[in-house]
Amino acid sequence: MRPLLPLLLAAPLLLAQAPPPSLANTSADQIIAAAPASAWISIDPDDLMVMDTAVGQMIIQLAPEFAPAHVAAIKALVKAGRFDDGRIVRVQDNYVVQWVARPLAGKEPLSQPPDVREQRVRPDPLPAEYERSSKGLKFTKSPFKDSYAKAGWVNGWQAARDRKAGTLWLAHCYGTVGVGRDMPPDTGDGAELYTVIGHGPRHLDRNIANVGRVLAGIEPHAALPRGTEALGFYKDESQRVKITRVRLASQIPGFAKWQMMDTASASFAQVVQARANRTGFFIRQAGAADLCTLKVPVREAA
Amino acid sequence: MRPLLPLLLAAPLLLAQAPPPSLANTSADQIIAAAPASAWISIDPDDLMVMDTAVGQMIIQLAPEFAPAHVAAIKALVKAGRFDDGRIVRVQDNYVVQWVARPLAGKEPLSQPPDVREQRVRPDPLPAEYERSSKGLKFTKSPFKDSYAKAGWVNGWQAARDRKAGTLWLAHCYGTVGVGRDMPPDTGDGAELYTVIGHGPRHLDRNIANVGRVLAGIEPHAALPRGTEALGFYKDESQRVKITRVRLASQIPGFAKWQMMDTASASFAQVVQARANRTGFFIRQAGAADLCTLKVPVREAA
Repeated sequence: MRPLLPLLLAAPLLLAQAPPPSLANTSADQIIAAAPASAWISIDPDDLMVMDTAVGQMIIQLAPEFAPAHVAAIKALVKAGRFDDGRIVRVQDNYVVQWVARPLAGKEPLSQPPDVREQRVRPDPLPAEYERSSKGLKFTKSPFKDSYAKAGWVNGWQAARDRKAGTLWLAHCYGTVGVGRDMPPDTGDGAELYTVIGHGPRHLDRNIANVGRVLAGIEPHAALPRGTEALGFYKDESQRVKITRVRLASQIPGFAKWQMMDTASASFAQVVQARANRTGFFIRQAGAADLCTLKVPVREAA
Repeated sequence: MRPLLPLLLAAPLLLAQAPPPSLANTSADQIIAAAPASAWISIDPDDLMVMDTAVGQMIIQLAPEFAPAHVAAIKALVKAGRFDDGRIVRVQDNYVVQWVARPLAGKEPLSQPPDVREQRVRPDPLPAEYERSSKGLKFTKSPFKDSYAKAGWVNGWQAARDRKAGTLWLAHCYGTVGVGRDMPPDTGDGAELYTVIGHGPRHLDRNIANVGRVLAGIEPHAALPRGTEALGFYKDESQRVKITRVRLASQIPGFAKWQMMDTASASFAQVVQARANRTGFFIRQAGAADLCTLKVPVREAA
């Protein structure tokens, strides 16, 4: 067994066979570690969805200010226990992991025909909360170009905006959580959610309700076997991954408190610059970075 | 068991629980299916690296015109059987899967200390082939903005360029294959390779030798358990995934012929526009797309 050395000592040895460096940039990490308390915003435990599955626990931060009706519907489903005994039904490579709540009547296997499931699961349609008015929100512009829109951050979220239209929306990046919908744009009900496990599919922006992001625990879910059916659906019930229990952090006594970095803070601006100009391993700084690479730091509160 | 319906019939039903659509856009797929033979370029079977592992077969296209010394070194390693009985040693979420050749002396377990491995594995250092002269190469510009550089395509590859410096380089996107290196920029030797399994880490561009891309079979490798050590390394030998055999397609009688779309063709320009302006599920077209989303179509020849 190789001895476990402290990371900074071990890294050059572990790197002897020459891997690329981690996404975690030391300088950005140093800025994050040194950021003052004022640079951090507490996340409301009522906005944290804690999902226990057969492969691990995924902690999701919901974004009520961007999709209020969807987030309210999801919280109601959580409180009613509807995600307990739900299933992960789809894993598509370089795209999404998707899961569904237990059907309303309770005991039907999810492998029954979806048109039957549909009648039982769907409550009233929700509004198409794919973008919102930018009025009253502080948008911090990214200093770098974006292929899709004007990119930046709002209230701790990766976002984009259309200044002329006065709208902004959450961007689809790795770990973004959205609400599945059928072809008509108002048919998502919050009972079927997905998270992105590939290159940020920004073409979904403004086409679907983004309701949050994974703060922790995406790894074992991103490593689930890819489904072999069309769109990465699992073929049968035995392949589906059980969701044992889903609660809001506010329902779990003693659950960890989480914080996100204030994206309007000087610390965050420094993080952005550090990620655009990585040092150490990097012989040439990119001098820029795309929105999905410029993730908002989050942490468990001390 | 749900009956297996043809995809076009099944999709609306399968979508009843409202997933987002596949990355595969029907219109782009139609353009690809209808593209004339002249829009396709045969891939030299001597540039196809066929890697059989414990979890599946990954087919990698090498790019000798971008990193000639590295690709020559890799082909020599393949022909010498050095990747046979190699190991996947690192899987870092939203980043890379990385594998190493068998140490030179042959029988040492890969779990021995890396400084010992290093002495045995490393041949002469290779030049830092991180970019190349754009002279004589046709660069097809992307019509869309890029956060990092001028983006486009060269000879069927996603690339970027610096017109003033007269250089261009392969971009780091999902499925890109690169050569691990140590901190000094000339220490990669081709015996340790990685492929990207997350959001395109374009900050690695021009910092590492890109040597190719995965054409098929990335899925079971992207779904491997993430390593729990620093940088996603597996902790011990039992976790490492065995590489059973690696050959060039030119060494395998009857191996499938592969083709890539000519990125200077009218068909490819249409694919780019279709991917930027998706229809069907999409109520709002993005009107743009980033380089990593604008993948070059590849196919097995009929």
